[in-house]
Amino acid sequence: MTYRLHYAPDNASLIIRLALEELGLPYETALIDRKARGHKAPAYLAVNPAGLIPALETPDGAIFETGAILLWLADRHGTLAPVPEAPGRGAFLKWLFFTSNTLHVAMRMRFYPDQYVGGDPAAQATLRAHLKGEISRHVGLLETQAAQSPAWLCGPAPSALDLYLACLLRWLQIYPAAEDNSWFNLADWPHLQAMATRLERCNSVRAAIHAEGLGETPFTAPRHATPPEGSAT
Amino acid sequence: MTYRLHYAPDNASLIIRLALEELGLPYETALIDRKARGHKAPAYLAVNPAGLIPALETPDGAIFETGAILLWLADRHGTLAPVPEAPGRGAFLKWLFFTSNTLHVAMRMRFYPDQYVGGDPAAQATLRAHLKGEISRHVGLLETQAAQSPAWLCGPAPSALDLYLACLLRWLQIYPAAEDNSWFNLADWPHLQAMATRLERCNSVRAAIHAEGLGETPFTAPRHATPPEGSAT
Repeated sequence: MTYRLHYAPDNASLIIRLALEELGLPYETALIDRKARGHKAPAYLAVNPAGLIPALETPDGAIFETGAILLWLADRHGTLAPVPEAPGRGAFLKWLFFTSNTLHVAMRMRFYPDQYVGGDPAAQATLRAHLKGEISRHVGLLETQAAQSPAWLCGPAPSALDLYLACLLRWLQIYPAAEDNSWFNLADWPHLQAMATRLERCNSVRAAIHAEGLGETPFTAPRHATPPEGSAT
Repeated sequence: MTYRLHYAPDNASLIIRLALEELGLPYETALIDRKARGHKAPAYLAVNPAGLIPALETPDGAIFETGAILLWLADRHGTLAPVPEAPGRGAFLKWLFFTSNTLHVAMRMRFYPDQYVGGDPAAQATLRAHLKGEISRHVGLLETQAAQSPAWLCGPAPSALDLYLACLLRWLQIYPAAEDNSWFNLADWPHLQAMATRLERCNSVRAAIHAEGLGETPFTAPRHATPPEGSAT
């Protein structure tokens, strides 16, 4: 069995696609129809009961949670994370969890405030406004880490963390789609910008650009996706 | 060098103490003075720039993020997580990340709403009220996982995930300290309650009860801590 990635264009599944491409692994995709709320349908909930995108079906069963899939793929297939015995493993894990449970979550809260404060527009606006400062603080910590590292976030080669973070930097610049997102300027974070620029030259990113209609500079000058199938929202 | 755990009583550092005890590892502790906001002081920020508790100093440098420390310890010292090659590794990782970035985060938002919506009391109340339903949904997914597993969350032996989850179940019952927390009733989740009951008999938990003043039944009938040093808030 090959891997099967449940995806929607330009959703968090993009991070897993990049990892699969970077590792050179064969995989097939299963498009989730977001407009029909396919990620909340029984067939998908049987794969991921949390109803979030992505999920990856593997010979060991379905895995969900972006961070979990990334780490599992990296450990199974090497090269995208320091091995458990490596001195850099701890640094990799701490920033992976931080990215997952702090930066990514804060972004989700800005994208889907109703899931956190319900339907009250004033509460949603308060949440969204406050989170700008929090997100800047989180990105600042990652910028400092990038500045202290030789080239990529956690060492001399790109890791799963670079793939993850580059996608988050993309989405900070273009989502929520109905809002003015100019408060987030990638140039304010030069080491992260340099990482994103280098990543855009990788073959894995070129493949994802083609598969999901991301445009030529998906991280450093992103625009909304024009995918060949499905929709991002 | 032995391990050095930066802790405050009954804070998330408790989860790491349980893992260190369960693994039988030697460690020393460094008390963080929460009342003096020691976790935001420069000396601690040099260990964990995110300013959160816990952090663990290791021969490979300081690690922070509860999930990252748990996974690092488990992989280095065995027995608290399926090894990377094991068929159960994916299930362990997906629930570990889910617990970290979904359940734990939702609880933090209820405990510290000001960090998400600022100082507006109405916005804080809206956030706290809405999150009760979200937390119940998250715990429900973990209850389903526990029901499908032979004894512990991810297999026949306790894992780092059981230690993590038992502490979260404790805190759901007693925090925020100024609120009525009777909406969360552990008996509503019988498989998780059974797991927590079994865990209370483990020597690791007995050691933590003594070290942090947790009372005899810290997971199934918790009360606020009366620690021999420091304070929980």
